[in-house]
Amino acid sequence: MRVRVLGSAAGGGFPQWNCGCRLCHGVRTGNVRARPRSQECNAVSADGDRWVLLNASPEIRAQIEAFLALHPRGSRHTPIAAIVLTSGDLDHVLGLLSLREGQRLAVYATEAVRRGFVEGNRLARTLERFPGQVLWRAIDDGPATELADPDGLPLGLTLTAAPAPGRPPPHLKGNLPDDPLENIGLALADAQGRRLAYVPGTAEITPKLEALMAGAEAVFLDGTCWSDDELIAQGLSQATARSMGHLPVGGPDGSLATLAGLAARRRILIHLNNTNPLLDEDSAERRAAEAAGWEVAEDGLEIVL
Amino acid sequence: MRVRVLGSAAGGGFPQWNCGCRLCHGVRTGNVRARPRSQECNAVSADGDRWVLLNASPEIRAQIEAFLALHPRGSRHTPIAAIVLTSGDLDHVLGLLSLREGQRLAVYATEAVRRGFVEGNRLARTLERFPGQVLWRAIDDGPATELADPDGLPLGLTLTAAPAPGRPPPHLKGNLPDDPLENIGLALADAQGRRLAYVPGTAEITPKLEALMAGAEAVFLDGTCWSDDELIAQGLSQATARSMGHLPVGGPDGSLATLAGLAARRRILIHLNNTNPLLDEDSAERRAAEAAGWEVAEDGLEIVL
Repeated sequence: MRVRVLGSAAGGGFPQWNCGCRLCHGVRTGNVRARPRSQECNAVSADGDRWVLLNASPEIRAQIEAFLALHPRGSRHTPIAAIVLTSGDLDHVLGLLSLREGQRLAVYATEAVRRGFVEGNRLARTLERFPGQVLWRAIDDGPATELADPDGLPLGLTLTAAPAPGRPPPHLKGNLPDDPLENIGLALADAQGRRLAYVPGTAEITPKLEALMAGAEAVFLDGTCWSDDELIAQGLSQATARSMGHLPVGGPDGSLATLAGLAARRRILIHLNNTNPLLDEDSAERRAAEAAGWEVAEDGLEIVL
Repeated sequence: MRVRVLGSAAGGGFPQWNCGCRLCHGVRTGNVRARPRSQECNAVSADGDRWVLLNASPEIRAQIEAFLALHPRGSRHTPIAAIVLTSGDLDHVLGLLSLREGQRLAVYATEAVRRGFVEGNRLARTLERFPGQVLWRAIDDGPATELADPDGLPLGLTLTAAPAPGRPPPHLKGNLPDDPLENIGLALADAQGRRLAYVPGTAEITPKLEALMAGAEAVFLDGTCWSDDELIAQGLSQATARSMGHLPVGGPDGSLATLAGLAARRRILIHLNNTNPLLDEDSAERRAAEAAGWEVAEDGLEIVL
């Protein structure tokens, strides 16, 4: 299984367009040793030929162009055989609207995420220009689903999902009944049983999410904020990480401490907010995460399981 | 007046994600002498300090980062003082949804364009997180409007608009009553009376559009397709340029012939579709356009009036 990080930042990217915090300013000027990152999006392939996107970021066009394996191989063609959504957040779904131009798409989403995108969203009609333009396929937290391309051809990957506690995005708040599957973590397994766990956003490590990660060869985990009060301390917001649906990485009850026993060979933090000191390659937090066996995702990182 | 081209391609950009036509393939491999282009978006400033965006492309984040003058100058700040929309096309409006993160925006649009974006579009609620997050200000084809920032401070630019014949985008078709102001051309003038005309999409050069362009020092014009049957000839679509709302550039009744008498010092074709031979710097069409006194916009082009 090949896994390619197309984008590794939280919503807004790094640097963020209207942010001049130490890190955003530092990455623009080169005063901080850090790499710019586009918004979270991954590509996974069992055969290196047909690819599954994990989420569809607003920057999907540039992300596709930056990865040769996703370039078309005919006058109208895409190696993107399916797209899996982990939430209805704009940074996870907005890219769908850039994947038009008459291409059929197979999109895997929970019913809550599908409704959040399709209902009450006239923009989604750009993906309803001909019958079957988007084939919505349901994810739930039951038995594994075999992923398939728009023609139904299997992609050699099965998907299991678990609810991830979170916070609905502003555009969905109060609009749909609360549903634990508004936000999920997932695992992909290939025919050899090699497993990737992908949990880019969660406010809590639940037993079900721990079960998803157990036995995975690689784990991508919510790395939005290092500390709960990170945005408050920088005077950028009144919101804690947890109130935004993100378990902080650091601290005695953060994800690193909670998952100290995780056996995965590759443990990778993704969905990094522009305020997160992990972005600074010279930071103490970066050294602490690495000492605990965690990597910090960056755009273009590729792993093979 | 400073004018900076942030993006110069039509919807889908160049190359387009799922297109392997001669030009898209050629720009990826370097076999065609052409530059990649992001989707059409311009920035204009009377004082070099506060900027007005013309349209908000899906790629706005990268476009802002690529232009130093648009970087924030404080911990939360943007030099983008206003945004003007010429249509409700996704490639003109989707970027608004990437300009969240608590920033106040002054958005100038006709009532038809505002309704097309706000009504029946739950995603737009991400821009309604606090009162006054987006200040919609109406454009019509009446007297000139003085552009102002969210606090009402004038930006030293006045705007006039005229209807541009076009075709509503798929997500709006049949949803709202037909309105000639769904698609507009506009002119911006500074205090010294220097004028920029901006007509990125039109199926026809009407007398009103000609009046907008008359006396302008610089004109940006719809350069989507060179010939009416360009997509058909390449086997990519059954649609003519005109049926998609774009007057072809070439031919005896194309825009170059129609506007042969235009006096503007800078005449620039923008919103180039990936099929347009003007993208190929070695093409006969490129030579013909240049011989007629027209430039082909590229990302990063800057002009001073």
